[in-house]
Amino acid sequence: MEKDLKPVKRTPKLLAEQVAGQITDLIKTNKWEAGYKLPNEFEMASLLHVGRGTIREAVKLLVAQNVVEIRRGCGTFVCEKPGMAKDPLGLSFVADKKKLAQDMCEVRLLIEPQIAAIAAERADENHISRVRELCELTEKKILAGEKYAEEDAAFHEALASCTGNQVMMQLMPIIRKGVALFIDVTSTERRAATIEEHRLIVEAVAEGDSAKAAEVMEEHIRKSKINVRDLPGKSHKEDKEKGKTGL
Amino acid sequence: MEKDLKPVKRTPKLLAEQVAGQITDLIKTNKWEAGYKLPNEFEMASLLHVGRGTIREAVKLLVAQNVVEIRRGCGTFVCEKPGMAKDPLGLSFVADKKKLAQDMCEVRLLIEPQIAAIAAERADENHISRVRELCELTEKKILAGEKYAEEDAAFHEALASCTGNQVMMQLMPIIRKGVALFIDVTSTERRAATIEEHRLIVEAVAEGDSAKAAEVMEEHIRKSKINVRDLPGKSHKEDKEKGKTGL
Repeated sequence: MEKDLKPVKRTPKLLAEQVAGQITDLIKTNKWEAGYKLPNEFEMASLLHVGRGTIREAVKLLVAQNVVEIRRGCGTFVCEKPGMAKDPLGLSFVADKKKLAQDMCEVRLLIEPQIAAIAAERADENHISRVRELCELTEKKILAGEKYAEEDAAFHEALASCTGNQVMMQLMPIIRKGVALFIDVTSTERRAATIEEHRLIVEAVAEGDSAKAAEVMEEHIRKSKINVRDLPGKSHKEDKEKGKTGL
Repeated sequence: MEKDLKPVKRTPKLLAEQVAGQITDLIKTNKWEAGYKLPNEFEMASLLHVGRGTIREAVKLLVAQNVVEIRRGCGTFVCEKPGMAKDPLGLSFVADKKKLAQDMCEVRLLIEPQIAAIAAERADENHISRVRELCELTEKKILAGEKYAEEDAAFHEALASCTGNQVMMQLMPIIRKGVALFIDVTSTERRAATIEEHRLIVEAVAEGDSAKAAEVMEEHIRKSKINVRDLPGKSHKEDKEKGKTGL
């Protein structure tokens, strides 16, 4: 790791930015992978021939860019998805959250059925068992009357992984969690239906039936969409509150 | 503006983060809109009862989050799309740029024909003239033998705007510029074809023929896709270089 970091030059460019740049490059070239624990402030400072303040500032920049995360008491680690923003589209800055939720559903309706179809074509055994696993996990939560948004999201993300398409895998969390960032779309009457619909999706993918996978996914999203449309408009204050959680 | 900013509390939470939070909220609630010029360091410092160093640090955080931008010699301004990252999906961290370009094209093929179809349904006179304008602008660049990637991107973004769907508008730049971030997909034999294909798209949208709009858009992207597949694999060094430009 010593050889990976070189003393920074005293160029006009901010020292902290140079340090951040070096770290970013090490991650891009997979020398430092997701979950890698960065050397501590003292080590970094001496390796880079800069003050600890500069290291601290560089880390702050990288945290703001979602490249590294600080785990209090543990140290600084490379993020699971380096550079992937919490709210990549800046949707928390969109004022009308109800319209946003409807737009998001329209986008899901446009993308997810096709992702399900491609998943049905490309999914291997591991993919399928992973999807089935998450389907069952979601069911358990629903039947226990617990919140299942996370497991639900993971299920849809697992379907995206079946495509082997990196961009779809990155997009899915955005379009899937985008709404959840602001509004809880899970209504009671949808809970039972979700179980059934998810099962149908899993079976279509397992059978490699892309037409059916797309069809059941479309129905699944259409039904969720209606709930969003039925939502009351958000008050300004609520917008602000929700917005906060969005960033 | 004085009333908008309140002195920050001396809580354990970093002062700079409190300042950044206040500014973010002013933008979210549209008190400070896109392009708004922030008060200078001195004013902010006195309004918030903190040192100029804290203001500077807060601005740095907001710049890293693409919420504000510093225009040298002019001041600090609210970004056009606050919170919208330059590389929202962190794609510059994906090592295999050739596979990435192919994945990106697959996603475009999945999304853009449908966007064109919806655009044909919803576009009003202003939308159509805007799209036509950008189509002609792209043609001029192509015929002049100049780079036209920007105008090309603007053309596709204008189509997304026709849908009136905020999320599609935010997604388009990502899927459109995503490839351009790393690889120049514009090849000579595509230049002439692009003119013709763009014209067909504009006409379909103008006629409100969504089926045709989707069809010509799909053909347009399929042809670009082939070029990407023909690209030579990128060397490790090139990846690093391109990656840099991606962040």
